[in-house]
Amino acid sequence: MNINVNDFLISRKKKIEEALPLFISDLSTPQSIKESMLYSLKAGGKRLRPALVLALLHTYKKPEDIGIATACAIEMIHTYSLVHDDLPCMDDDDLRRGKPTNHKVFGEAIAVLAGDGLLTQSFSLIVDDPAVKAENKLRLVSELVKAAGAEGMVGGQVADMEGEAKSLSLEELQYIHENKTAKLLGFSILAGAILAEAPEEDIEKLREFSYHIGIAFQIRDDILDIEGSQDKLGKPVGSDTLNEKTTYPSILSMQGAKEKLQDHIKQAKELLQHLSTKTELLEQFCDLIAKRDH
Amino acid sequence: MNINVNDFLISRKKKIEEALPLFISDLSTPQSIKESMLYSLKAGGKRLRPALVLALLHTYKKPEDIGIATACAIEMIHTYSLVHDDLPCMDDDDLRRGKPTNHKVFGEAIAVLAGDGLLTQSFSLIVDDPAVKAENKLRLVSELVKAAGAEGMVGGQVADMEGEAKSLSLEELQYIHENKTAKLLGFSILAGAILAEAPEEDIEKLREFSYHIGIAFQIRDDILDIEGSQDKLGKPVGSDTLNEKTTYPSILSMQGAKEKLQDHIKQAKELLQHLSTKTELLEQFCDLIAKRDH
Repeated sequence: MNINVNDFLISRKKKIEEALPLFISDLSTPQSIKESMLYSLKAGGKRLRPALVLALLHTYKKPEDIGIATACAIEMIHTYSLVHDDLPCMDDDDLRRGKPTNHKVFGEAIAVLAGDGLLTQSFSLIVDDPAVKAENKLRLVSELVKAAGAEGMVGGQVADMEGEAKSLSLEELQYIHENKTAKLLGFSILAGAILAEAPEEDIEKLREFSYHIGIAFQIRDDILDIEGSQDKLGKPVGSDTLNEKTTYPSILSMQGAKEKLQDHIKQAKELLQHLSTKTELLEQFCDLIAKRDH
Repeated sequence: MNINVNDFLISRKKKIEEALPLFISDLSTPQSIKESMLYSLKAGGKRLRPALVLALLHTYKKPEDIGIATACAIEMIHTYSLVHDDLPCMDDDDLRRGKPTNHKVFGEAIAVLAGDGLLTQSFSLIVDDPAVKAENKLRLVSELVKAAGAEGMVGGQVADMEGEAKSLSLEELQYIHENKTAKLLGFSILAGAILAEAPEEDIEKLREFSYHIGIAFQIRDDILDIEGSQDKLGKPVGSDTLNEKTTYPSILSMQGAKEKLQDHIKQAKELLQHLSTKTELLEQFCDLIAKRDH
């Protein structure tokens, strides 16, 4: 029985969005920060990262329930990073997905602390999950720190900020996106594989796979900022050009960027051929990432 | 052979300060954030929290080496909280221990990200430590999230900010200090006991002990802000009064605050009597906290 990736995303998004607030709503903490954390967690988004955790469990025919808490932990980390990135001292954004950003609603101090709270809490979701084996929990936390910390997402955000309004080489651009975007996206895939107890050879292939998928995701992002529809994206297009940001199309030309995107997708799909299980759903994810319009 | 608490603190502070930068200096991350993280980690301080981890191992006659990484993790979390608390949107402090605060040197954006990086990395110190058993690692991470996150230090900082320039009840003041200060201090004690594999009954007693010690620590802080010496503290005194902050002396009078401090110390020492091991060093810690002048 084949499942369609769009149906999969819709149903899992619903599942994640039901589970996510429950990890925060019962915390004994001041009302203001609880509301602030919940506000950003509930602000929507594609929920692609948590869906990927579940997609890997699905691929390895394991119960998806054992991935819910880890999937939510990743979404919390993604959310905290958006809250901090939107701060006036960083990207200074007033809107996120068409809604006022966290600090616009709750003030800067609460936004900083809500981010800190989400980041800290995410680790509890993993280690306090009774459904997961001890050794897998430890591996997840270890990999998560590499993906989300100074050697991953946080380092990528630093490089991104420092590269603003500078002309970057392809190598520098690659560093930013590998770290800022691809590593946490990649951790979602890895986490699902670890939870599914996939063979180690598969996990190593999936590590490579997730690199290609993560970079492809970002190239598509850059293309959409030029060719996308404001309605579908829910945000203005053309901001990269306006801010003189180095992007894949600005270095490689639009044609070159599209070829590079296709090349990463091809390599990702090639890797899937070598896994020990059937991978239709992951192949569909590749196409979705290559063709997404939002 | 008795050890003197002051000698203990001096020698362990040295050990911690040698180990601490090593967890950051080899990370593959942009130079700016690496320098920013190291700047605040190296900014000094009493290193009381990490020393308490080692003091518990000493008390239970276990090798202190198994506590070094966890001790450093706690100091990283303490450090990140100072970096974020000093931000313009929070306490807006220009100086910390007589040196320019992190954001004054590296800018606000890097300071936010350095804090995020330290917080994230701290979890790796615990889970990637080959000297610690898997089940103990998981217990440490779980307790650390409770102590440092929205249900602990982060929640306490929110309550502290929201209580500024308001007149607080003793209960509200207690909430702030229990969460903002006592819980992470308490985690240091708990972590040492977990690593030492102290009997569960001892661990429960030490949980109570650490509450009294944490509150006593804060009462002493409030007293020092009135009666302390600027030279010894390395910061101006009288700032609480100036900022109309509610403190233990402002609610209870100076005499009442001193009595409350003594009462917590007495209860802490009483609890030590019921542990399964000799506790001279911890008794000395109690006296040190009650009488410290900086």
